Amino acid sequence: MAKILRVNMSDRSVKHEEVPEKYRLMGGRWLTSGIVSDEVDPLCHPLGPNNKLIFAPGIVTGTIAPTSGRVSVGGKSPLTGGIKESNAGTPWGQKLARLGIKALVVEGYPQDGKWWGLHITKDGVEFFPADEYIGKGLYEIFPDLFKRFGEKVSISAIGVAGEYKMAMAGICFNDIDNRPSRYSGRGGLGAVMGSKHLKFIVVDDQGGPGVEIANTKLFDIGRKKLTEALRTHDVTKPGGGLNTYGTAVLVNILNEAGGLPTRNFREGRFEGAAKISGEAMAEYCKTRGGVGRMGHPCHPGCVIQCSNIIPNPDGSELVSVIEYETTWAFGANCGIDNLDVIGKLTWMCNDIGLDTIEAGGTIAVAMEAGLAEFGDEERAIELMEEISKGTPLGRILGQGAAITGKVFGVTRVPSVKGQNMPAYEPRAVKGIGMTFAVSTMGADHTSGYTIAPEILGVSGKVDQFDKDKAELVRNFQHSTAFIDSSGHCLFIAFAILDIPSGFEGLIEECNGVLGTNWTAEDVMKIGREIIDTERAFNAAAGLTRAHDRLPEFMKYEKLPPHNVVWDVPDETLDAVFGE
Amino acid sequence: MAKILRVNMSDRSVKHEEVPEKYRLMGGRWLTSGIVSDEVDPLCHPLGPNNKLIFAPGIVTGTIAPTSGRVSVGGKSPLTGGIKESNAGTPWGQKLARLGIKALVVEGYPQDGKWWGLHITKDGVEFFPADEYIGKGLYEIFPDLFKRFGEKVSISAIGVAGEYKMAMAGICFNDIDNRPSRYSGRGGLGAVMGSKHLKFIVVDDQGGPGVEIANTKLFDIGRKKLTEALRTHDVTKPGGGLNTYGTAVLVNILNEAGGLPTRNFREGRFEGAAKISGEAMAEYCKTRGGVGRMGHPCHPGCVIQCSNIIPNPDGSELVSVIEYETTWAFGANCGIDNLDVIGKLTWMCNDIGLDTIEAGGTIAVAMEAGLAEFGDEERAIELMEEISKGTPLGRILGQGAAITGKVFGVTRVPSVKGQNMPAYEPRAVKGIGMTFAVSTMGADHTSGYTIAPEILGVSGKVDQFDKDKAELVRNFQHSTAFIDSSGHCLFIAFAILDIPSGFEGLIEECNGVLGTNWTAEDVMKIGREIIDTERAFNAAAGLTRAHDRLPEFMKYEKLPPHNVVWDVPDETLDAVFGE
Repeated sequence: MAKILRVNMSDRSVKHEEVPEKYRLMGGRWLTSGIVSDEVDPLCHPLGPNNKLIFAPGIVTGTIAPTSGRVSVGGKSPLTGGIKESNAGTPWGQKLARLGIKALVVEGYPQDGKWWGLHITKDGVEFFPADEYIGKGLYEIFPDLFKRFGEKVSISAIGVAGEYKMAMAGICFNDIDNRPSRYSGRGGLGAVMGSKHLKFIVVDDQGGPGVEIANTKLFDIGRKKLTEALRTHDVTKPGGGLNTYGTAVLVNILNEAGGLPTRNFREGRFEGAAKISGEAMAEYCKTRGGVGRMGHPCHPGCVIQCSNIIPNPDGSELVSVIEYETTWAFGANCGIDNLDVIGKLTWMCNDIGLDTIEAGGTIAVAMEAGLAEFGDEERAIELMEEISKGTPLGRILGQGAAITGKVFGVTRVPSVKGQNMPAYEPRAVKGIGMTFAVSTMGADHTSGYTIAPEILGVSGKVDQFDKDKAELVRNFQHSTAFIDSSGHCLFIAFAILDIPSGFEGLIEECNGVLGTNWTAEDVMKIGREIIDTERAFNAAAGLTRAHDRLPEFMKYEKLPPHNVVWDVPDETLDAVFGE
Repeated sequence: MAKILRVNMSDRSVKHEEVPEKYRLMGGRWLTSGIVSDEVDPLCHPLGPNNKLIFAPGIVTGTIAPTSGRVSVGGKSPLTGGIKESNAGTPWGQKLARLGIKALVVEGYPQDGKWWGLHITKDGVEFFPADEYIGKGLYEIFPDLFKRFGEKVSISAIGVAGEYKMAMAGICFNDIDNRPSRYSGRGGLGAVMGSKHLKFIVVDDQGGPGVEIANTKLFDIGRKKLTEALRTHDVTKPGGGLNTYGTAVLVNILNEAGGLPTRNFREGRFEGAAKISGEAMAEYCKTRGGVGRMGHPCHPGCVIQCSNIIPNPDGSELVSVIEYETTWAFGANCGIDNLDVIGKLTWMCNDIGLDTIEAGGTIAVAMEAGLAEFGDEERAIELMEEISKGTPLGRILGQGAAITGKVFGVTRVPSVKGQNMPAYEPRAVKGIGMTFAVSTMGADHTSGYTIAPEILGVSGKVDQFDKDKAELVRNFQHSTAFIDSSGHCLFIAFAILDIPSGFEGLIEECNGVLGTNWTAEDVMKIGREIIDTERAFNAAAGLTRAHDRLPEFMKYEKLPPHNVVWDVPDETLDAVFGE
């Protein structure tokens, strides 16, 4: 039977606990939010002794279900002050699951100033002094750790940003080639790990029991249906949009729609969009050759394979991966149209341990504050170096865009609940703006990717400017909460929204693993339960309807090229969750 | 008839408006909070175009009522995110009242980057370009402005901190000797003034109509009763505690009670207390001579006269004034026991335009973060210089203790709603802790000075550790809101709490000026109405019960010497305002 592994950093004690009945069917976000809700005081200091950090593989993570290598990380967020779940695609979660660990709960707070690493194997947990790794970049540490613990382990770690307890510090995981490049980036959970003086977690699943599957036959039926859907849908199929151009296939599409935030959300269209697009990346891979590759998987078993390795002019590795959000954050949003510079900035995020969305958004707000001109590539790199060094300026930036704006008295700060917006302009695409506003996570596109119908025409097409989207936003958030719990990548949504058998497959996979009889209705009910739990935590933490709002400037500044303001009524926002 | 003067910084237009009926009886805090509540969107950015800055003299300010030279300043606070009223004792408010101006409303937002000053006379308002004063200290600017506009005017201005839009920037007023030393310090209203590019406001009341008094006879009866009470009570009388030792008479008293926060609220008793006390200041004045003086009034007509001029060893002026809060903030709270250094730091606050409570609290949190050792006098001065220069480190510190703590990942940050606590330890004096928690203003002793009964035995003595104080805290906040509206200094409370005729006198003064027939019951009703208005604004701005709480560390860290934690139940806090 799977266990909950509880590690206390105060006394370095370890417990393998039976899974309580209430958690038995949970996984991923459902489980992290459940444990946070049950065990963390909503009014605790996020970096104090009473916050906890929860890692939970999804329900089917660790099985051969397609595109299911997600691990959720949860806790109280230092960035938003609310509950946080941030998931990553990596072999790490698969290995944790195969060790029979349903959740890893890190709690307590060491008093002696020392840093520690964990080594988790089938035989238990060992603590390793980690002081020797402090102050170093993740590109230096990861090879050392793989050398020390073996190439077949998987590693989670924080960079110096987490050591500095910066609110934009993410938790880094290795990809299939053991690079430090996959992130539970958002919400500053790396700072929570840093506050507990936990530097790394090595997982070795050799000899582990694997994931128990209650009904193998049903599971197999399900995974085949889902695989087929993924292999069929234009967005997710091999040779499809995501596989060919990566997530950055969206750059030209959003730019065309006037919804690509440019120069810190001053405009909705970027003149340099084509140069930072997925097409441009594919062209780099083709013409520069070398290690360059589109269609790279972030974890074994992914059908979509939307990651990439971007080459330098000489064919050597510039960085893996440049996502849509990243090329936008450092590109359009900073007025930079140079993919090599964007690659360099991405590499720095991976090395320092930063969320690329928050980092790019922060550089843009710093530009707004006059610390650099928009488009100043050199200065952008210098600002990232300040973060890396932890200078006073770096400490400001490391806290994210909202704090940077506050410190420099900037009013044009595109954040919600302290978290900077991702690469979609709320004024031009109303449903995603509503999602940013009401999400339990702060501004977060992965809370409910309404871009699918609003821009891509997936699951039908709705007008991007239409404001009557409370139901759409609600349904997307509920269904997404379930997907985040299943262990699948959110990108399966494209296929299962359009292909009913794909959605059936998802449910059958879960029923197969758990021995349940969930219907589509049950799945939406579970999604609603997860969101309700998260909202209750946030309310107790002091987040109200007033926090379910977009920043004021969007109401009075018209966004080119459509010259639109944020005009979704507050009543519509409040109607999303109907309280 | 008195008017509301409305100045729009967007187009530099000016309007003298009739006073709407609903504001006719209001003054001071009642009026600033009323206008803010009516005209400011609770969700606006505090530094954006839609915030407003309101100046309102009290109901009797500008008359010869004793100790009534207070002016309230209101707006949405950049520090707390809620409503803010901060009042100062200065001739400025008296002169504004004598020009027949019930409130000055500053609104709008200049787009051209230029700075402006206002010159308000009986003939109207003139705008003066103020760019020449930017970047300079207030000790340099004030003499220049008095030379330019005449020695008999009164001046309000912001220092460089307001120009930088720092959340600890106060609004400075001259004292009776035209020093830049009286402050509406708390809550960052100087940043709001800075966001509007308003550098100074000169008020010249020559030829002004004066304050209308509806019933001179009743007014005279009232002011005589109040004067007599002030001249009789041990705390407020000439030669009494406040007059002889200034507000810093409290240092030894609170230290004795174990409630003097020491080294960033790590302890409740400071070994160097005697050296930073009011008694020590009086000794300086006596032995050093020169300009040194205790018992200095901050505005004409004060009976109490608790301000001071602290001399250098050679008898020249070190600074005016070192208040209790100030000598504590830079003294005990930073582990500094050198009054000359505290004087220098106070002078810097006056010059830069800072709230001394927030500044000292921030230096203490910076010491907590490891930027200096507790007690390091030189480094404390250097940190203040960083603020003055607006370096990145200075920008962090300028945002106050809560943001400084956040940026450096400190968990021991004694703030509520973003505002740092004043000089009373909640764990050792429960009622003032409750006041800090539930005040609409963030941690603020002037919201309801329960120290009077809890420590000083004024209005009866209650046990400092007793937790059953919801009613006490409520009554103090309601009555204080009325005093803040009357134009009187809060220190009249000592006399009117113990001497019934003094309280009668206060009401008769107001009835005399306004032609009303208020009873003691009416006064408490008005106080309640003010608090309710402020709480409604805060609720709409997103402040909830979760914000009516003290910081978590006080619940689990025992405070020496009494080894007490914060243990007032949340239910008791919620019972204060009974919602």
